[in-house]
Amino acid sequence: MKIALAQIAPVVGDFDSNVALIADSYARAVSEPSGPARLLLCPELAVSGYPPHDLLDRPEIFTRTDAALEKLAKLTLGQTTAIAVGHIGRNPEATGRSARNCVSVIENGRIVFTQAKTLLPTYDVFDEARYFEPATEQKAWNSGTERVVFAICEDLWGGDEVLGRRLYGKNPVDVYVGLKPDLLISLSASPYEFGKRAHRESLHAAVVKRVGCPLIYVNQVGATDEVLFDGASFALRSDASLAGRLVAFRPAFAIFDSDSETFQGSNEGREDSPPDELDVMIRGLITGISEYFRRTNFKLAILGLSGGIDSAVVAALATRALGPENVFGIAMPSQYSSHHSLTDAETLARNLGLPFEVRPIKFFFSAANREMGEARGGLSEIAQENLQARLRGLTLMTLANHYGALVLTTGNKSEIAVGYCTLYGDMCGALSPIGDVLKTRVYEVAHRLNEWAVREGKVSPIPESTLTKAPSAELKPGQLDQDSLPPYPLLDAMLVDTLENFLPQSELRKKHGDWVTDILRKIELNEYKRRQAAPVLKVSPKAFGLGRRVPIAKHWKTSAD
Amino acid sequence: MKIALAQIAPVVGDFDSNVALIADSYARAVSEPSGPARLLLCPELAVSGYPPHDLLDRPEIFTRTDAALEKLAKLTLGQTTAIAVGHIGRNPEATGRSARNCVSVIENGRIVFTQAKTLLPTYDVFDEARYFEPATEQKAWNSGTERVVFAICEDLWGGDEVLGRRLYGKNPVDVYVGLKPDLLISLSASPYEFGKRAHRESLHAAVVKRVGCPLIYVNQVGATDEVLFDGASFALRSDASLAGRLVAFRPAFAIFDSDSETFQGSNEGREDSPPDELDVMIRGLITGISEYFRRTNFKLAILGLSGGIDSAVVAALATRALGPENVFGIAMPSQYSSHHSLTDAETLARNLGLPFEVRPIKFFFSAANREMGEARGGLSEIAQENLQARLRGLTLMTLANHYGALVLTTGNKSEIAVGYCTLYGDMCGALSPIGDVLKTRVYEVAHRLNEWAVREGKVSPIPESTLTKAPSAELKPGQLDQDSLPPYPLLDAMLVDTLENFLPQSELRKKHGDWVTDILRKIELNEYKRRQAAPVLKVSPKAFGLGRRVPIAKHWKTSAD
Repeated sequence: MKIALAQIAPVVGDFDSNVALIADSYARAVSEPSGPARLLLCPELAVSGYPPHDLLDRPEIFTRTDAALEKLAKLTLGQTTAIAVGHIGRNPEATGRSARNCVSVIENGRIVFTQAKTLLPTYDVFDEARYFEPATEQKAWNSGTERVVFAICEDLWGGDEVLGRRLYGKNPVDVYVGLKPDLLISLSASPYEFGKRAHRESLHAAVVKRVGCPLIYVNQVGATDEVLFDGASFALRSDASLAGRLVAFRPAFAIFDSDSETFQGSNEGREDSPPDELDVMIRGLITGISEYFRRTNFKLAILGLSGGIDSAVVAALATRALGPENVFGIAMPSQYSSHHSLTDAETLARNLGLPFEVRPIKFFFSAANREMGEARGGLSEIAQENLQARLRGLTLMTLANHYGALVLTTGNKSEIAVGYCTLYGDMCGALSPIGDVLKTRVYEVAHRLNEWAVREGKVSPIPESTLTKAPSAELKPGQLDQDSLPPYPLLDAMLVDTLENFLPQSELRKKHGDWVTDILRKIELNEYKRRQAAPVLKVSPKAFGLGRRVPIAKHWKTSAD
Repeated sequence: MKIALAQIAPVVGDFDSNVALIADSYARAVSEPSGPARLLLCPELAVSGYPPHDLLDRPEIFTRTDAALEKLAKLTLGQTTAIAVGHIGRNPEATGRSARNCVSVIENGRIVFTQAKTLLPTYDVFDEARYFEPATEQKAWNSGTERVVFAICEDLWGGDEVLGRRLYGKNPVDVYVGLKPDLLISLSASPYEFGKRAHRESLHAAVVKRVGCPLIYVNQVGATDEVLFDGASFALRSDASLAGRLVAFRPAFAIFDSDSETFQGSNEGREDSPPDELDVMIRGLITGISEYFRRTNFKLAILGLSGGIDSAVVAALATRALGPENVFGIAMPSQYSSHHSLTDAETLARNLGLPFEVRPIKFFFSAANREMGEARGGLSEIAQENLQARLRGLTLMTLANHYGALVLTTGNKSEIAVGYCTLYGDMCGALSPIGDVLKTRVYEVAHRLNEWAVREGKVSPIPESTLTKAPSAELKPGQLDQDSLPPYPLLDAMLVDTLENFLPQSELRKKHGDWVTDILRKIELNEYKRRQAAPVLKVSPKAFGLGRRVPIAKHWKTSAD
């Protein structure tokens, strides 16, 4: 059976465009030079886009789904190619959630098979139990020649462990084994995480070993707010070996023959040797930026260029996502800025080809300090530091409003974790491209972006001195990050162990020493800032934002166990 | 059987203080003048506080729970009074979530009975399926003389409808009927909503009619971030009539005798005739402010006083929550501020007894406009309007940092819905006290606060002209809210129908006319602002924030259907 994989980028709520994307893929599947494919596969909830979140409370989500499925059904009239596509379905029961997360097979003008999702992920960024009623049975679809089982994303992850536990008592794969399918298909909307591809592939290979038939995995690509979808679809042979994979973070289309267990046609969209994981992550960040702008109908980004590594990396990523003409870099030196800060920012902008302006905050800072501090013997140090950051935020936001642009915020995960960032200051922005990237990895990204440029025959964008100088917020004379933080390699290791691995405090202290109490305290105290942060592109197992829900008004001891 | 109700305010994560609260109530229950109570009832998850959210990912939450339960067990050694208390429990199964939401009975030094929660609310602000494994069986506890069934909050709400549907296929009350208990107890952490008390009481009365025994309902009081808990505990006789209720939004302690089906002792903490709902909501907002400050260890609030109704109401609420000496009011007139704005702000501050200062933004606004607009023929109107709001935000935040205070943001729900607010401007703040109060109700609150003051023999705080003048943001000459919005009564009715009732767009247009398309569009476009908003005290069925999760980077048609 010849099967087309449509690795597409549906937009949440945009039924018309999503139908058009599916229709384009369908046209290709039907008009394959070697004859029409039997089946076109589209991702989980491709009709509505994923994740629809609380759009599921709106009655139109059902009527718009109906209309979209009807359009797709018309496409298939008189054709031998069926469509398998994910969509929101109604729960036929009188009680329980109103919706189900469904896959339907549409053939010759009508829906001939529907399977609902069984395992509903409800952890980290996932809220599916909030919206969907789970399937109570799993069946196979008979294509005429083959028995096909459709799983929806999490349905094949029941054997996985999250923080050392299997989350589900039941595993639909047990049922699939009994269904003795000729082919297993997973339609997915599986978020990207650094290093997840290898785990995802080996987990699906383990399923194939149990079920004993080939498996095709089709994942959506793109980004919705903070969540990146890498695509990276693949097919596994019945012996669990990899038949081939599709590219990460780009739409792709491919034909797989389940009889010969091989991909057919050109290798357009294929990426059979696993790409370097840092390269993939960088592509993901670029996708996150470009998709956010595309989906919110903005073109122009503005950001502050401090001469430091974080803003340099964000500028380089944004340039790749939006084009240099659409990234406006602003240097905003104060009396505490060193000379190299300005020259490094200028060099970066020139290397990237960005429009660039210098707008010093010196005058405003002096004036504000005088106006607000005079009557009471000068503003406190913390007020003065934040004031500088907020004057910069104010400058960027005013220019963004004037030009109809979005501000990109440049903080990294290490900073945001310990609160080395100013709410309404450097935290201003529509999107936080590297808010889930630890400082040590920001350096790796910077070096890699320079390497990419060299490979493309361009100048390395990020200046050497930006890469080598000691990190500083430059909010008071001679200030360095390391004055009040452990060295970044130590800090970042601690952050992974507490934020992602949830090590007990006693173990953290054993492993990382005395800094732990202070760092844990800083993390707790700054929860309020993160609650008001811009969406952070998620690349780790635990990013700040939607997937991490910690109360602000709590008391949590960080000094004992 | 004599039963003590402890309507307490546990703090999330603060095990030591929560144990102390329970111990205090226990001491009272043991030393009752008429002899010790047989049982002390404490709310759902009283040991950890509710909602713990992702603290449940931390291993310490279990070890700290163990230690706390051990302390409580020691209290009961040699006593005839048992404690029934909500706590986080371990899931004994090898698969599934690691935790359960439990109630245990602790008697004479050990846990003698545990019941886990069966129905796990996962909608609006609730995420319990994210954390807990549900109970698979329901049993009764034998007190020696009586069979007692413990329900945990949602367990008794299975018969309720949310947006016209029952959310659960199973209803534990069916099992309770078969258990033939002598007494039904619900330990709860049930958030406040305007008008919820009557619904809550009638829903529990319907349960009593089915089960046929008295019911005691104990709810926590206080607030965690945006979620308010009203307490308002009560007991129902076996004929489903009300035996009595405890006060809303204050801790309380009472003794109920399940044999005579009456409350005993003084009526301290009782509030048998239902209080006016607007009064209760105002008490709730005051509780939300005071609890936020208490739990984050802040004392001083700062807010901008514009002379308008919103800031006047927030100032009056904050004054009741924190005391006038802890509420610092700042008027920040611009060249567009009318004279009455300043005098109304002054009058308000004088009436409330607040420290008050005038800090004009005129100078900064002119200077910033000149510096940032000059080169390109003046800043756009929208940039100028936002600039003013941001200069005010900057002023408040700088003073807050200097004095170690928290800023209260003053926007109402109508404004926030349509985006008539400036991100990093008037949206600056740690907490949004009236962000879930529609403009029309803000006026009702203002009048009521004035009535409260008069009843207490004080001057009405909110000036007459604040109550009567036409609302204006005063960001350009002669600007009025009604220039670009429908009259507030119409806008607010529309907002309830779309945000809370989820009416289809076609019905909205039929009911509310041509404004609908524009208003729906404004709501969609401003999702990004709300993502970065301060926590909003929730008083409606659907507040902005945690309980409403709408993607930003989406396309949602508001011009069709």
